[in-house]
Amino acid sequence: MRNFKLLLEYDGTSYFGWQVQRNSKKHPTVQGALEKAIAELFGSPLRVAGAGRTDTGVHALGQVAAFQVETRISVEKIRQALNRYLPQDILITDVAEVPLEFHPRFNALKKRYRYVIYNGIYPSVFYRRYVDHCSYALDLDLMNEAARILEGEHDFSHLVDEKEQNKVRIVYKIEIESRKNIIHVDVTGNGFLYKMVRRMVGLLIDVARKKIKLEDVEKILQGKYNGTRVVTAPAQGLTLMEVEY
Amino acid sequence: MRNFKLLLEYDGTSYFGWQVQRNSKKHPTVQGALEKAIAELFGSPLRVAGAGRTDTGVHALGQVAAFQVETRISVEKIRQALNRYLPQDILITDVAEVPLEFHPRFNALKKRYRYVIYNGIYPSVFYRRYVDHCSYALDLDLMNEAARILEGEHDFSHLVDEKEQNKVRIVYKIEIESRKNIIHVDVTGNGFLYKMVRRMVGLLIDVARKKIKLEDVEKILQGKYNGTRVVTAPAQGLTLMEVEY
Repeated sequence: MRNFKLLLEYDGTSYFGWQVQRNSKKHPTVQGALEKAIAELFGSPLRVAGAGRTDTGVHALGQVAAFQVETRISVEKIRQALNRYLPQDILITDVAEVPLEFHPRFNALKKRYRYVIYNGIYPSVFYRRYVDHCSYALDLDLMNEAARILEGEHDFSHLVDEKEQNKVRIVYKIEIESRKNIIHVDVTGNGFLYKMVRRMVGLLIDVARKKIKLEDVEKILQGKYNGTRVVTAPAQGLTLMEVEY
Repeated sequence: MRNFKLLLEYDGTSYFGWQVQRNSKKHPTVQGALEKAIAELFGSPLRVAGAGRTDTGVHALGQVAAFQVETRISVEKIRQALNRYLPQDILITDVAEVPLEFHPRFNALKKRYRYVIYNGIYPSVFYRRYVDHCSYALDLDLMNEAARILEGEHDFSHLVDEKEQNKVRIVYKIEIESRKNIIHVDVTGNGFLYKMVRRMVGLLIDVARKKIKLEDVEKILQGKYNGTRVVTAPAQGLTLMEVEY
């Protein structure tokens, strides 16, 4: 048996996220499309594991997946063949053989997500599928200060509304870069809860547009904030950039 | 009566080109979408004229259109309101009031189209809707030499297979720029026949990949070439960039 690690990118617009859903016809997923291509190549259905379970509409430039199969085909041939079977919005950029123990999610040390904000009147039609559109004036200094508060090890249960369990994660770094009307928010962490990056970005935007005060960021993390709910930034602005092992 | 000139961009992927088709439900067009938005704003159906009748799947960053209406609404309000009614893949970037005589097609002096070629193994999924994918090695010096032959005033009837009429057009300039795996071919002319830019690009690619000889370009223009048919480069790589008046 051999274990293959895939590096892949996808435009998530047409998918109900990474993870296979019950009704796969009505709710196509990236994992489902990948498993279909793999089944066509090897003639039997195989399970594929992914590093990050991206949500509906979220994109990827550096998603990692893996599957095991008994075969003699070379990694280069597997890449070429799978890309032929895959739809236009999914692309495998690399295939490598890895030890059988390798698991893309359990072995991941760090993940980096990028959130793209278009801050202006109207984003070009050529960007719209990949950005969140925000026409409010944004104070990037405030956004950066709020980012410093979110960095580090925190229990993020209050930010993501999952109060039942202890949800401690480490956010190593939040980098904010702006060029013309485009703002990139790059978040690197050891793992992320459901909608966690989009909640963090929603919070950063609300601070930058002065809807939420800087001193309330800490309170929100601690569940001591009684103001308006933190907005979840829309999925289309988010891209899984990189998974480190 | 007032005459309004619109500057607009669109992602042509979902449209059967600019011009309204008979079955507008089955064959949605950019002109149709624009006329629908205008009818919603002004309460009555109005005809919109466009500068370039882009084909199915062709994009625009600088299409120009115009329509006449009796109204007191300001140009800025018209722009805002129409953008609210328009779908996500069409955007009006400017509205200006122009003399009643102005016609976007008849008054156009020059048009510039850009064709984007991805020259490599696989284009990113985020480019695929907007590029032609060519994995052959391309000699850009040869492509440039062929471009010099296509520039100038020519009868293009043989290139576009319309032998009945005299089809003289002036190609002012063909600029080829390459950066990493992306090649831009910018063609500026006083007007273009149906599929003319895509035939020119198909010819340039065939010369650059050494399928057609440089000395045969002239013969093709003159209808004296007996080799393989010139390929029409796919629509998705083409964008109407600019119309000059």
